[in-house]
Amino acid sequence: MIGATLGGPFTAASAEPGASSSGRNPDRVRARDLGVAPGDLEPGEHNAITDVDGVRVGQVTLVDGDSVRTGVTAVVPHPGNVFADKVPGGVYVGNAFGKLAGSTQVDELGTIETPIILTNTLSVARGLDGAVAWTLRQPGNESVRSVNALVGETNDGALNDIRGRHVTEEHVIEAIEQAAGGPVAEGAVGAGTGTTCFGWKGGIGTSSRITGDYRVGVLVQTNYGGSLRIDGVPIGEELEAGSDAAGTGDGSCMIVVATDAPLTSRNLGRLGARAVFAMARTGSAFTNGSGDYAIAFSTSSDVREPAGSDVRDQRILPSAGTSPLFQAALDATEEAIYNSLFMATTVTGDGGTTRHAIPLDDVRRLLRKYGRGR
Amino acid sequence: MIGATLGGPFTAASAEPGASSSGRNPDRVRARDLGVAPGDLEPGEHNAITDVDGVRVGQVTLVDGDSVRTGVTAVVPHPGNVFADKVPGGVYVGNAFGKLAGSTQVDELGTIETPIILTNTLSVARGLDGAVAWTLRQPGNESVRSVNALVGETNDGALNDIRGRHVTEEHVIEAIEQAAGGPVAEGAVGAGTGTTCFGWKGGIGTSSRITGDYRVGVLVQTNYGGSLRIDGVPIGEELEAGSDAAGTGDGSCMIVVATDAPLTSRNLGRLGARAVFAMARTGSAFTNGSGDYAIAFSTSSDVREPAGSDVRDQRILPSAGTSPLFQAALDATEEAIYNSLFMATTVTGDGGTTRHAIPLDDVRRLLRKYGRGR
Amino acid sequence: MIGATLGGPFTAASAEPGASSSGRNPDRVRARDLGVAPGDLEPGEHNAITDVDGVRVGQVTLVDGDSVRTGVTAVVPHPGNVFADKVPGGVYVGNAFGKLAGSTQVDELGTIETPIILTNTLSVARGLDGAVAWTLRQPGNESVRSVNALVGETNDGALNDIRGRHVTEEHVIEAIEQAAGGPVAEGAVGAGTGTTCFGWKGGIGTSSRITGDYRVGVLVQTNYGGSLRIDGVPIGEELEAGSDAAGTGDGSCMIVVATDAPLTSRNLGRLGARAVFAMARTGSAFTNGSGDYAIAFSTSSDVREPAGSDVRDQRILPSAGTSPLFQAALDATEEAIYNSLFMATTVTGDGGTTRHAIPLDDVRRLLRKYGRGR
Amino acid sequence: MIGATLGGPFTAASAEPGASSSGRNPDRVRARDLGVAPGDLEPGEHNAITDVDGVRVGQVTLVDGDSVRTGVTAVVPHPGNVFADKVPGGVYVGNAFGKLAGSTQVDELGTIETPIILTNTLSVARGLDGAVAWTLRQPGNESVRSVNALVGETNDGALNDIRGRHVTEEHVIEAIEQAAGGPVAEGAVGAGTGTTCFGWKGGIGTSSRITGDYRVGVLVQTNYGGSLRIDGVPIGEELEAGSDAAGTGDGSCMIVVATDAPLTSRNLGRLGARAVFAMARTGSAFTNGSGDYAIAFSTSSDVREPAGSDVRDQRILPSAGTSPLFQAALDATEEAIYNSLFMATTVTGDGGTTRHAIPLDDVRRLLRKYGRGR
Repeated sequence: MIGATLGGPFTAASAEPGASSSGRNPDRVRARDLGVAPGDLEPGEHNAITDVDGVRVGQVTLVDGDSVRTGVTAVVPHPGNVFADKVPGGVYVGNAFGKLAGSTQVDELGTIETPIILTNTLSVARGLDGAVAWTLRQPGNESVRSVNALVGETNDGALNDIRGRHVTEEHVIEAIEQAAGGPVAEGAVGAGTGTTCFGWKGGIGTSSRITGDYRVGVLVQTNYGGSLRIDGVPIGEELEAGSDAAGTGDGSCMIVVATDAPLTSRNLGRLGARAVFAMARTGSAFTNGSGDYAIAFSTSSDVREPAGSDVRDQRILPSAGTSPLFQAALDATEEAIYNSLFMATTVTGDGGTTRHAIPLDDVRRLLRKYGRGR
Repeated sequence: MIGATLGGPFTAASAEPGASSSGRNPDRVRARDLGVAPGDLEPGEHNAITDVDGVRVGQVTLVDGDSVRTGVTAVVPHPGNVFADKVPGGVYVGNAFGKLAGSTQVDELGTIETPIILTNTLSVARGLDGAVAWTLRQPGNESVRSVNALVGETNDGALNDIRGRHVTEEHVIEAIEQAAGGPVAEGAVGAGTGTTCFGWKGGIGTSSRITGDYRVGVLVQTNYGGSLRIDGVPIGEELEAGSDAAGTGDGSCMIVVATDAPLTSRNLGRLGARAVFAMARTGSAFTNGSGDYAIAFSTSSDVREPAGSDVRDQRILPSAGTSPLFQAALDATEEAIYNSLFMATTVTGDGGTTRHAIPLDDVRRLLRKYGRGR
Repeated sequence: MIGATLGGPFTAASAEPGASSSGRNPDRVRARDLGVAPGDLEPGEHNAITDVDGVRVGQVTLVDGDSVRTGVTAVVPHPGNVFADKVPGGVYVGNAFGKLAGSTQVDELGTIETPIILTNTLSVARGLDGAVAWTLRQPGNESVRSVNALVGETNDGALNDIRGRHVTEEHVIEAIEQAAGGPVAEGAVGAGTGTTCFGWKGGIGTSSRITGDYRVGVLVQTNYGGSLRIDGVPIGEELEAGSDAAGTGDGSCMIVVATDAPLTSRNLGRLGARAVFAMARTGSAFTNGSGDYAIAFSTSSDVREPAGSDVRDQRILPSAGTSPLFQAALDATEEAIYNSLFMATTVTGDGGTTRHAIPLDDVRRLLRKYGRGR
Repeated sequence: MIGATLGGPFTAASAEPGASSSGRNPDRVRARDLGVAPGDLEPGEHNAITDVDGVRVGQVTLVDGDSVRTGVTAVVPHPGNVFADKVPGGVYVGNAFGKLAGSTQVDELGTIETPIILTNTLSVARGLDGAVAWTLRQPGNESVRSVNALVGETNDGALNDIRGRHVTEEHVIEAIEQAAGGPVAEGAVGAGTGTTCFGWKGGIGTSSRITGDYRVGVLVQTNYGGSLRIDGVPIGEELEAGSDAAGTGDGSCMIVVATDAPLTSRNLGRLGARAVFAMARTGSAFTNGSGDYAIAFSTSSDVREPAGSDVRDQRILPSAGTSPLFQAALDATEEAIYNSLFMATTVTGDGGTTRHAIPLDDVRRLLRKYGRGR
């Protein structure tokens, strides 16, 4: 049994000896701290997906010996029984060289009924088993015999002994169980422990926006490549290491989008599309081998899907009202991606491979050179 | 200018000299008159799509000289301004060797904003122009500058000089203008004037079902092949002419499904799927060249989509309540297809080609032989 | 550890005390033995999916104590390294109240790279783990770090302690390892051990057709309801037990279609559509709760997808040549469904629930009453 | 009859009194002239979609009186009989508040069989009629009775009397007939005569890239909004007019992508996806009301789709070889969008509304301010 370190919002063990947790590493800051703040909308209190009331995030970071660098990130849509009180949801597929499980039922019914699990490519099965097992044991679900879990992944095989399939059902349940609101650990934690982004250490990032009465929160698991742009500045061209991952065919980005706006599942799918589109702002190469998906859901009680076949009332925001939310998803995703890079710490893993944290001093210098940042 | 004959519910000119209108030809009866009544649910008053309150059908039958055998069938979702007060809708694609126009916006937004037009393959443009022109001129639409019309087709080129593109914008507007409730002319009328089904004369057919508080109505434009089954009886095997059209690659079936159940656009798309599936009961070969689509909409005021971006109340039937409606769509589509055959009269058209009305005496005999019918 | 009985083509343990294996139970015969042989095309040698050269089927039947009635059915596309020499494939979604895993990558790339696994709803994770683990350990795959497995399911919770998740990764690997060509055990075996079809015991069924130079083989896992028709005869109406499962919301049908025709992935998806459409012939109610999917692949070496990014030659059958194959898929699926019913034996399982084998004497009598059968 | 001015590559009449044609206005230059050249790949000879050998573009610009500001742009895939010798193609839907006609058959069969027509929203019918009529009259098509034309649109109603539907079938045929290779007129010409982009005059733009042995060419019809970025520089924030169009709901972008790489229709659809993604680089708001589509095709004779149902040889570039082409589509689309803005001239139209050409001096100044351009 490997030494799983539980990564709560502030308890994620660093993968870097001597460093503090990703959330608190004094050398790592968020995009906004460098003046990178896409768009005109304000973020929520924590600038995190958890700014959407009721959404909780739990992470288990697996760092063991020389070769285990992986983990689990769980996004729990609301504090109640998600299976009994389903949320409307949609999955948007940008490029599907990926192993997302559970999407066809969401496409058909427009509902999400479990926590959303992110992990590594070869551990999707464990993600499913964990989400299903946890759901079966929730109070009120004693007679449930059909559960559709949504599990996404990116491939951390460059740093992690991915073939060892070190994630277990128990890790997944732990991630769900310890999910919490408030700040979310970013960088080399949870499902982002072993991922690579634009040749640098990537990982988990999050951000949020407020528009009118509504909030949109985004969480990303970054593992893709291309030629990095930050706020339009060609960081990738300037820093040579930037495009290592572009051609590998393993690059991917999983995106989870939450909102408290009462959107239908149809419009949640469209909201997810904007999250994928936002990757282009950052210079994604959208290669053949990328697995780019967005999963979007609404927490609004006005659009919940409880059991039962009787007619029921909903209160929805129509399509004509979605554009500000689309803008929020574009901007928050862009910032969440930057946060995944900025907050990540250098990780050395399987086979002695190292992914360096993006050098923030260089980023700061380049932002200024191109008239951006602060 | 060809001599267009307007086909109202009972005024459709017959394509067969000396015969009365399709709706009243004493030799032609509906499926139910032969004891063919799929499923356990009861039909509505007219056993027609117009049993869904507010739905109206208008048809223009074009029969001119030796070679024009075509027309237009319009289904108007409700009596109000459909553009201003859109209905939720969905399009299901069974096999898309077809020229359906307008589906991507329905897929995106889940709304239908014009009458649904059926015509021949090379006249889809005229269908669009007619539906758009009619919509632009409706009171209240004076400033409308974007209209998405839904136009479907099947290929009547075997009997009709289809390359002559004899349908005009005006014919389409006429079909919409004269749309009415009540009984619907079936067989060789409107968009079914020149179509072929299982080697026999096909055309327009309709049927409906009542389930609980709701009605489901179906209208079909049949132009496909295979080995005809009626109520499970192998009519096609017994009557040799039956499978002529199977291999042509031009076979198609357009299906319109209306309901007053407050279904979301997602569930309307699923309702349409069942209509396409029902074709299999009749022995469809679903060849490469078939264009099999179903367009489904709800007339319920509880799920209308008026303009405006503000939050609004809906009252919906959830997915868990859809199964009886699905059954209704399966059964009504099957019966509507039989009606299109049973009510069709023999037509001779372009190049002297003839499509015979299916011989109902033989059908009656064969139904009895196999223990069905009456 | 429960007593797993391995179900090879002829070694499947019966779930019925005293009965021989499903494949050899003297009281159970295949549809064709009763004169039910849909369509004009001839079946292959075994009238099984294995008539497509190279396709192998392996099944593990889990029967233990009073409550374990489940299993695994694996379809292996070809005898080589499927991951290194991928087959073109497509997934068709009829109704997705189901947990199919692996479909988005197939949708994106049009390739299948593992055996196809069928099991129960809550064991999809184990199916994934088994298919992935088996693939990782194949010679030549030592450096593989990304595997997309296709796993389908139906819900056997009526007879099986499904919440116990008794299928393990090892069972899945066993099913793959013992896969063989030739006759395929049908009925209450493998993934069909605990399923229900039209209120009767359903399970695994298979059939094939020859058209020109090509073969189409189908394997089904039946677990759905409606009003059973056999060769058009209303068996369900006549035998009252028939429609028990129609309204449960748990009905589903997984279909695997194999062909040696050199079809592109696009046309394989279309081939799968016809398999789903064929369910309508049997009286499927296609309820909200059904999970109806078809997975289709080609074994032809002319369309394989080996690794590498260089231009390569293919030899394909164009869309215009697909209609005979579509007909074959329609007919073989219909027959495979009947075989799943006819070959199934009565099973009593969890909570003492019993699903009876459909009484073949009654079926024979009713077929004759309606002028069918022999 | 309005005075249609035919816009060949260099004969497009300017919509601005006293100005020369858009292609030659001395004050308007292409993006590359200002040092804006996205990505590392080189463009082809004309930096136009016509750099893909055999692709021709024809444009008809309709400028009449105070209120007609519209037109047609036709992209002809190859010089032969496109109907008889179809090209593989795919349609990617970014956001479908749009009236694209012809897409379902392309989705089903993966082939394009006519010139691709772009025009205004309410003239899609005329686009269809023109493309169909032109196809019917081509030598060799005398017996053709089924034609699937692809017609896209954006809404030029701000400058154009769109409700007047001034585009005719004849205009569309003219655009096809005069299609030519070589340089392509950009800006306020053809289907771009009356469009608006980021609050400035938009229109037609084109660009191309060479990667290895292959070329990728892109043509856009820009009519969308957001906050304009050029090469990452926040032009929209700096020039206040920039975001006028963002909230109108009428913004759209039609994109045509051509390549001579032997891609399957599946991979052409994926190529089109990258073209839509590239819009995000330019600051697109992707609002609810946008109609963003990409139509992609290959001219390679190795993947053509001639008539016939016999097995045939293809020579394809597999999915694993697509990433460089994806990069080319991303970069060429970004540049084509800039070209549509840079080459557009100020247009005053319906109701006296004016859309100003983006001030290139300001753009040049701002590019320098942010360390870009030359």
